[in-house]
Amino acid sequence: MTTRWKLVIEYDGSGFCGWQRQASVPSVQQTIEDAIFAFSGERVTLHVAGRTDAGVHALAQVAHFDLEKQVEPHTVYGAINYHVRPAKVSLLSAQVVPTDFHARFDAKARSYRYLIANRSAPLALSAGKAWHVPRPLEIEPMQKAASLLLGKHDFSTFRASHCQANSPWRTLDVLDIAREGEVIVFFTKARSFLYHQVRNMVGTLTMVGAGQWSVEDFEAAFKAADRTRGGPTAPSEGLYFQDVFY
Amino acid sequence: MTTRWKLVIEYDGSGFCGWQRQASVPSVQQTIEDAIFAFSGERVTLHVAGRTDAGVHALAQVAHFDLEKQVEPHTVYGAINYHVRPAKVSLLSAQVVPTDFHARFDAKARSYRYLIANRSAPLALSAGKAWHVPRPLEIEPMQKAASLLLGKHDFSTFRASHCQANSPWRTLDVLDIAREGEVIVFFTKARSFLYHQVRNMVGTLTMVGAGQWSVEDFEAAFKAADRTRGGPTAPSEGLYFQDVFY
Repeated sequence: MTTRWKLVIEYDGSGFCGWQRQASVPSVQQTIEDAIFAFSGERVTLHVAGRTDAGVHALAQVAHFDLEKQVEPHTVYGAINYHVRPAKVSLLSAQVVPTDFHARFDAKARSYRYLIANRSAPLALSAGKAWHVPRPLEIEPMQKAASLLLGKHDFSTFRASHCQANSPWRTLDVLDIAREGEVIVFFTKARSFLYHQVRNMVGTLTMVGAGQWSVEDFEAAFKAADRTRGGPTAPSEGLYFQDVFY
Repeated sequence: MTTRWKLVIEYDGSGFCGWQRQASVPSVQQTIEDAIFAFSGERVTLHVAGRTDAGVHALAQVAHFDLEKQVEPHTVYGAINYHVRPAKVSLLSAQVVPTDFHARFDAKARSYRYLIANRSAPLALSAGKAWHVPRPLEIEPMQKAASLLLGKHDFSTFRASHCQANSPWRTLDVLDIAREGEVIVFFTKARSFLYHQVRNMVGTLTMVGAGQWSVEDFEAAFKAADRTRGGPTAPSEGLYFQDVFY
């Protein structure tokens, strides 16, 4: 009889090709699957709540897998944390869940955080952990533009061309922007996001923050439902997959 | 006629043997001196406000040097930031100061920050940027013990054996401890500190936070003015040289 395990995982995306296993490049999935094999002898497949791209970090990613071997939660927790070393992956918790739990399909909402280091000087301590934007950004117009995205809309303007979702319609629950010293923090939450949606929203909002676009320009681009009307894709290193809600 | 320059510098201590230049290992001092040579052709010596050990970070370190070449502040700023790459060093500002300014001798006070990640799980995103202490720490008794250190005292209990200061007496102005989620933040300020004083104070305070020592045990160890009575030296990766006050 197999047991289904739910893992909550933190990782630094810098050293990885992303979440998903790929031949001959280090992925978060492979790192954890190898750690599970190392203590259990079982080759399992991890199912993740939100796949992340190369460079994208996670504060509390969720994944599940099935294990034949009967083990205690503290053993799974300790063994995975031991065997993933020295990769910058940390298992925050491991718990047994019902065998019909699914990390991806049962998720009711996901949240992301995006950090912009808005200062002239290059980044030393936060290198690889935030997007460095040297030109001054005003957050008030960005907040105004962001409020237009709340609710149910066609998000084609912020959808990567190779997005595999069936529909460009999504319902955005939260998109907050706050300044904490020299860092601008974006927090967003939705049932699900299109591919690159968060990075495209952030990149386009910075056009407004920098004064290159008015809020009206932003609104027109959004309503056009056309990716070619949107702004640049913000880089991966500022993005954090934050939480999954079940 | 030479110009004296004051630099404010942020760095990630992880990849360095510390501030001070040493043969055949990367130091922050050498990195910046080489960057200055690269744009000016002059071999200068940097004088720093507070030397830091291997692994110790800086949020706003201060150093000065003299340059023959006449250049604009934005050129010095841009050129140093350009030439230090890819080292995790960032010049926050460069300004001309009177030729009798001395980064070290004119400093009226220095402040440090120390971060403890107090959680069970290993560190992924903050690896190398905080001390990982898995056992739960209570901050109230640590705050009580810390308050005993304020004012003028013989700090021998927290003084590294190879400290070169003339006297073990120091006046501690601030030692605040606060919990921010899973992170415990120490902030301390004094005219000057003994070698390893901050790391030894933090390491010894965690004995109190973990309940291994009472506040009275801590006080007795402090009053003994004897390093062998103190607790462990907290690791370098949690320490941040924060500010210099002139």
